[in-house]
Amino acid sequence: MNRPDFSKSAALFARALQVIPGGIYGHTSPALALPGTSPYYAARAEGCRYWDVDGNEFLDFMCAYGPIVLGYNHPEVEEAAARQARDGNCFNHPTGLMVQLAERLVSLVDFASWAVFGKNGADMTTWCVQVAREHTEAKKILRVAGAYHGSHAWCSPGHGGWIDEDRAHVHAFPWNDLDAFRDLVKKHRGEIAGVITTAFHHPAFGDSVMAAPGFLRGIQETCRAEGIVFILDDVRSGFRLHLGGSHRVLDFEPDLVCFCKALANGHPISAALGRKELQPAAGRVFLTGSYWNSAVPMAAALSTLIVIERDGVIERIGKVGAQLREGFVKAAAKHALPIRYTGHDSMPFMSFGDETNFLRSQVFCREMMQCGVFLHPHHNWFLCAAHESHDIAQALAAVDDAMAAAKAAF
Amino acid sequence: MNRPDFSKSAALFARALQVIPGGIYGHTSPALALPGTSPYYAARAEGCRYWDVDGNEFLDFMCAYGPIVLGYNHPEVEEAAARQARDGNCFNHPTGLMVQLAERLVSLVDFASWAVFGKNGADMTTWCVQVAREHTEAKKILRVAGAYHGSHAWCSPGHGGWIDEDRAHVHAFPWNDLDAFRDLVKKHRGEIAGVITTAFHHPAFGDSVMAAPGFLRGIQETCRAEGIVFILDDVRSGFRLHLGGSHRVLDFEPDLVCFCKALANGHPISAALGRKELQPAAGRVFLTGSYWNSAVPMAAALSTLIVIERDGVIERIGKVGAQLREGFVKAAAKHALPIRYTGHDSMPFMSFGDETNFLRSQVFCREMMQCGVFLHPHHNWFLCAAHESHDIAQALAAVDDAMAAAKAAF
Repeated sequence: MNRPDFSKSAALFARALQVIPGGIYGHTSPALALPGTSPYYAARAEGCRYWDVDGNEFLDFMCAYGPIVLGYNHPEVEEAAARQARDGNCFNHPTGLMVQLAERLVSLVDFASWAVFGKNGADMTTWCVQVAREHTEAKKILRVAGAYHGSHAWCSPGHGGWIDEDRAHVHAFPWNDLDAFRDLVKKHRGEIAGVITTAFHHPAFGDSVMAAPGFLRGIQETCRAEGIVFILDDVRSGFRLHLGGSHRVLDFEPDLVCFCKALANGHPISAALGRKELQPAAGRVFLTGSYWNSAVPMAAALSTLIVIERDGVIERIGKVGAQLREGFVKAAAKHALPIRYTGHDSMPFMSFGDETNFLRSQVFCREMMQCGVFLHPHHNWFLCAAHESHDIAQALAAVDDAMAAAKAAF
Repeated sequence: MNRPDFSKSAALFARALQVIPGGIYGHTSPALALPGTSPYYAARAEGCRYWDVDGNEFLDFMCAYGPIVLGYNHPEVEEAAARQARDGNCFNHPTGLMVQLAERLVSLVDFASWAVFGKNGADMTTWCVQVAREHTEAKKILRVAGAYHGSHAWCSPGHGGWIDEDRAHVHAFPWNDLDAFRDLVKKHRGEIAGVITTAFHHPAFGDSVMAAPGFLRGIQETCRAEGIVFILDDVRSGFRLHLGGSHRVLDFEPDLVCFCKALANGHPISAALGRKELQPAAGRVFLTGSYWNSAVPMAAALSTLIVIERDGVIERIGKVGAQLREGFVKAAAKHALPIRYTGHDSMPFMSFGDETNFLRSQVFCREMMQCGVFLHPHHNWFLCAAHESHDIAQALAAVDDAMAAAKAAF
């Protein structure tokens, strides 16, 4: 197999550094992945594969960091989007699609009686924090340390650009530490507006951790007892664990839920849904954006939801995800490498033994990329409906070599 | 002419009220326009016209509240977008289009040496506030009272969902009051990170006001002298006054500029550009979103910028805008109605005489809508390159009747 050449990516990046701070910023920054041994710029994609600007082909396990749940350029979704685009996208008013999509989502999410829409995950997580404050007339927000809820000042993982006031009423507790959560509630009793958590813990630069038995249910019970609003940030996991919200497979029930990534298979839209009691507060927190009523992503979302349900996508992804997990575990055992394979099978992550610096993971992922399989060393992976058994087999063939290289490197 | 029937809009809205707080929220809320006498839902659009779900045709002077600068469904822009969509939109990486678009914008905006991208105007105004704080290590932000910079907590025009801490370091001064601005600077000397203004004052529920001679230049000079970052929010006016930023026709120079609406003729993208000295701070303020690298809106933006420049769009819009203004002034004189016709010809606003409650404006706009011309009684209007002289003539024919009705009503 020819080893990939990244010279066009490198040339574009050199140009980018002249006109863009950092060249590439945010979650796709090469500094977060593998400088020099990873593509920097994509050219096209189809199914579970993409081609970078140098023409290298990658079997993809990042799915655009989540949005691609059916495979890139899914014909049915793209046809629905193109059909709407012929009539128009951005108007003076919403279209009937907004009503249809709200009705559809409300019918899917058991506890919800209303929906609103934005473009980005953080549009919704931040707005839900505001709704919790408006509903309770309290200020404090509890969150899990290290969880990602977007790039806004109250929760950004970055060190720059936020001031103490942005986080004066944001308090963190460790994932799976119900006692610490309850201590915070006790300490700030009567001052707490909401708590926000993901469905399972999937931090960048860390293993994923499922909820301990009773953890999320325990948060829910305290919230109900204390009048605290429980916000589920299902931006990353929504529509990969369950069509009606990830809480459905994790035995708890939030008051608000935020969706984004997989909702429209890559078209820009996010949504928040909530319980009836929160509707008056939701109506009082101003919410808008230039493109937030746009019709094309709503057409794409309606189509994506149809395909996910009709084609049993969540079950399919779970099955190929299990195949991938079993293959990784087997390959690691063959090379006597201890691994941690964590998270949900539809969005897993792997790290090595007791190392915490991800250096062996970087070698491993670099080798996988050299063999045409795109994996991330510091961020959870994503599977999609376009991954077939033979794709998993191709990935596992590369895993064997990559494990050998990862072992040999240290 | 048949008076429009809005029964399908009304039926959809009744359904929406069941599943969406307020039914329609944000800047397109019917509560902000004309309940019962305006369409609520759009179906399709072409050029400077759109059709609502009841099949009513409107000659449009809102342009989707700004984004539509070339006309709805501009063939060249839509072809560029569709071509990119065939290759893909949302990937693991940016595409070369991001570099091209940054290079293009930096070449257009005289003071800027770098660019970043988001989806929404507020993504950029808020991020620029953060960059100003990061660059100066100061907290305070000065802004113009009543100006709109998005729906985020530090600046939302809504009353709900924000806490005192969100605005603890945000201080307002009146538009065109350079003394008040200087007093704030004096009062908070050494604590001020930035000042943010629009290119001219275009508040909702108010007349537009151009800058008094020396006002924006005076802000600039104080900013330079005091080390304060001057942020131009060109979200609404960008690419309608000048291709290189509205400051070019208003004799001042900011340090950062935010663009959004007209950048991609309705495709979802926003941008911020800045001076070289601010690049290090910009690189330290984490900036990302699930769809912020997406390729289709960048292809649409590149195409939109080509068409604006090649077809002399800004001059064209100014010319038909002047025609509209002259016609309104003449019609008002004929009916002996005192009007204020304010703002830039490309995005004007009209109100009546010395009234402050907009009741006569509502009657006027309702009559215009009844005649198939969409105007907003409380928000500035927008013209686009698809408005031809005969469209203006059609609007002016309706204005005569609407002025008569507005006069008769009080």
